[in-house]
Amino acid sequence: MTTISMHAASVPVFAKMLDNMLNWLEAAKAHAEARKFPADNYLTLRLAPDMLPFTKQIQIASDSAKGCVARLAGQEIPKYEDSEATLAELAERIRKTRDYVLSVPVAAFEGSEGREITIPRRSGEPLKFDGLNYLRHFATPNFYFHVTTTYALLRHAGVPLGKNDYLG
Amino acid sequence: MTTISMHAASVPVFAKMLDNMLNWLEAAKAHAEARKFPADNYLTLRLAPDMLPFTKQIQIASDSAKGCVARLAGQEIPKYEDSEATLAELAERIRKTRDYVLSVPVAAFEGSEGREITIPRRSGEPLKFDGLNYLRHFATPNFYFHVTTTYALLRHAGVPLGKNDYLG
Repeated sequence: MTTISMHAASVPVFAKMLDNMLNWLEAAKAHAEARKFPADNYLTLRLAPDMLPFTKQIQIASDSAKGCVARLAGQEIPKYEDSEATLAELAERIRKTRDYVLSVPVAAFEGSEGREITIPRRSGEPLKFDGLNYLRHFATPNFYFHVTTTYALLRHAGVPLGKNDYLG
Repeated sequence: MTTISMHAASVPVFAKMLDNMLNWLEAAKAHAEARKFPADNYLTLRLAPDMLPFTKQIQIASDSAKGCVARLAGQEIPKYEDSEATLAELAERIRKTRDYVLSVPVAAFEGSEGREITIPRRSGEPLKFDGLNYLRHFATPNFYFHVTTTYALLRHAGVPLGKNDYLG
């Protein structure tokens, strides 16, 4: 059975979608300028009153990517302050995340499909996975959840984006 | 470099999220019953007037999964009629898709990371990928786009779902 590496199944996926998100924020900024409203108005949008707002969607997308890469590579997870208060600062968070995931050496992923990964939870026992199941059934869907919700919030807010912007 | 198979990076991902979607549709049905509205009212919901409706989101999630698996495995892509007109028929579509992707033998994915994949487009040149880039930069994000938009539509419509339902 020919195969692909855990690095190939994770880092390029995160890096590409994070780059795409930067383009969406550019489009959001241009839309705000054209319609003459403050671009930071996006930050508090929610798809439902009991869903997390735009800012949190981006912060958690970032956390999913950097957490996954660090855990698979056996590195300390970079800590970011979650203090972003403008669209520009959210873009900077995305850029920093992309640069981090791209900086982790391919060799650090060696054996990561079998590495034991433990995810603490706010309540209850921590979740335990091997690296492969963590990547495909937790980190990746979680990442796409917050990425796609970010996109959906912008579409819902009238920002002119399409599937080609989503895929990049 | 230890590695994972193309099958392991695709089929279980699609199968698990399709199973999760079945649970969301059950929750949507229960919500409709509790609030006494026809469950098929969900089918025409859109997040924005220029986005595809609920039914199409599920049909395309299905197409992304079965198209990806068939193309990687070098099989004919199963054709479904896109004639679903009820929530129950959409659930049946999801079940059929899950059963199909699980039915494709692991051995058929041999060498698929390098297989040339051609995706026709409504206008312009077809897209060409090798199997790995097709999986990670086209089929998987496309799948998650439509899966997450389905989830977002249900959340937006008040169906009580949370991240644990999303991840399964």
